Amino acid sequence: MSATSEIPPATVGRLPGYWRVMRDLVDAGANIVSSTELAEAAGVNSAQLRRDLSYLGSYGTRGVGYDVAVLSERIGHHLGGGRRWPVVIVGAGNIGRALARHHADDEHFRVVGLFDADPALVGSLVGGVIVSAMSDLEAIVASTGAALAIVAVPGTEAQSVCDLLAAAGVTSILNFAPITVVPAEGVNVRGVDLTQELQILAFHAARRRSASENGPGI
Amino acid sequence: MSATSEIPPATVGRLPGYWRVMRDLVDAGANIVSSTELAEAAGVNSAQLRRDLSYLGSYGTRGVGYDVAVLSERIGHHLGGGRRWPVVIVGAGNIGRALARHHADDEHFRVVGLFDADPALVGSLVGGVIVSAMSDLEAIVASTGAALAIVAVPGTEAQSVCDLLAAAGVTSILNFAPITVVPAEGVNVRGVDLTQELQILAFHAARRRSASENGPGI
Repeated sequence: MSATSEIPPATVGRLPGYWRVMRDLVDAGANIVSSTELAEAAGVNSAQLRRDLSYLGSYGTRGVGYDVAVLSERIGHHLGGGRRWPVVIVGAGNIGRALARHHADDEHFRVVGLFDADPALVGSLVGGVIVSAMSDLEAIVASTGAALAIVAVPGTEAQSVCDLLAAAGVTSILNFAPITVVPAEGVNVRGVDLTQELQILAFHAARRRSASENGPGI
Repeated sequence: MSATSEIPPATVGRLPGYWRVMRDLVDAGANIVSSTELAEAAGVNSAQLRRDLSYLGSYGTRGVGYDVAVLSERIGHHLGGGRRWPVVIVGAGNIGRALARHHADDEHFRVVGLFDADPALVGSLVGGVIVSAMSDLEAIVASTGAALAIVAVPGTEAQSVCDLLAAAGVTSILNFAPITVVPAEGVNVRGVDLTQELQILAFHAARRRSASENGPGI
């Protein structure tokens, strides 16, 4: 195994941001970027950036910076760039349908299956993909080789759907259901809980409101 | 100002998860919960949980645990519970429309405006909300008192939309556009980048694929 297995999760979480900045630099025709410039564009401090990139074996050249083409290629390689990853989406409700349409033209991901338990939705076309029955999930994951899945089902269904995906061979899941899923052995699950995101916004708004009602603090 | 201003951002990020568990306990008729039980249900370790709750002034009773009703109310208070927060959504594309429908029946949030720059979308009805022109944004934010906004526009438009929202009086923004927005003074911006989330999944899948191709590591 490569040094990849040593990359801390927080660093992994920042790699897509670095990659976005690097691709912009490639598009702009830049050859060299300093750690200060790159850190600023990515919204991190430059010590953090240098430490993160050192996990990829990229140290740059002191007083010069990083070779844009080399670094972009290296980050992209770690993020699975260079191929278009087949993805399945389970749940053809508002969020699942939006994601199917959103990623319809994505250069890095290709929606190869969209599934729903509701027979009324099966057979309908969303973003160029026909909604399939849950009973077809295992066969479609096998035939497409999809290792990635998006789960956009009610909280009560999320655990059993994730178990089903794991059994079918999916190894990475993005879960939009409002529950914490217990991942099967060897499966990565990331959660995006939209209501929780709004609650965090409300925390800040409530704090600001309370501060303005009570006057300035001491 | 209350002790609220001292709560670290990472703790704030975990409060919605604690609140969800607490409301489930309230619904189940529980009176007391131990820190171990609560930590397990929320997917954190119990030392972390106790530290997080101590920021809210909740220490529980040694050997007994936390009073479910009191703790639930306290966490909910910090997250702006007890009122239904008006939210505006800018961008009536796939993601913006899905969020408008998704939050149509939310008990904590109410979508009071949905905006788009495309005249062809203005006037259409989405999740019970009529799409408005961008030129109506300031007036609608003012009349509804919306402090929260969701931005679901292309990356090229996100900064100017966030600036417009801040000028209209919005103080908390959830940004789905694939760029890092520089927030105006006094405005909180959280980002959810769906493509980056998928790239992080692809990182893990690529690592697994590479490990299985190269055989076990040493």
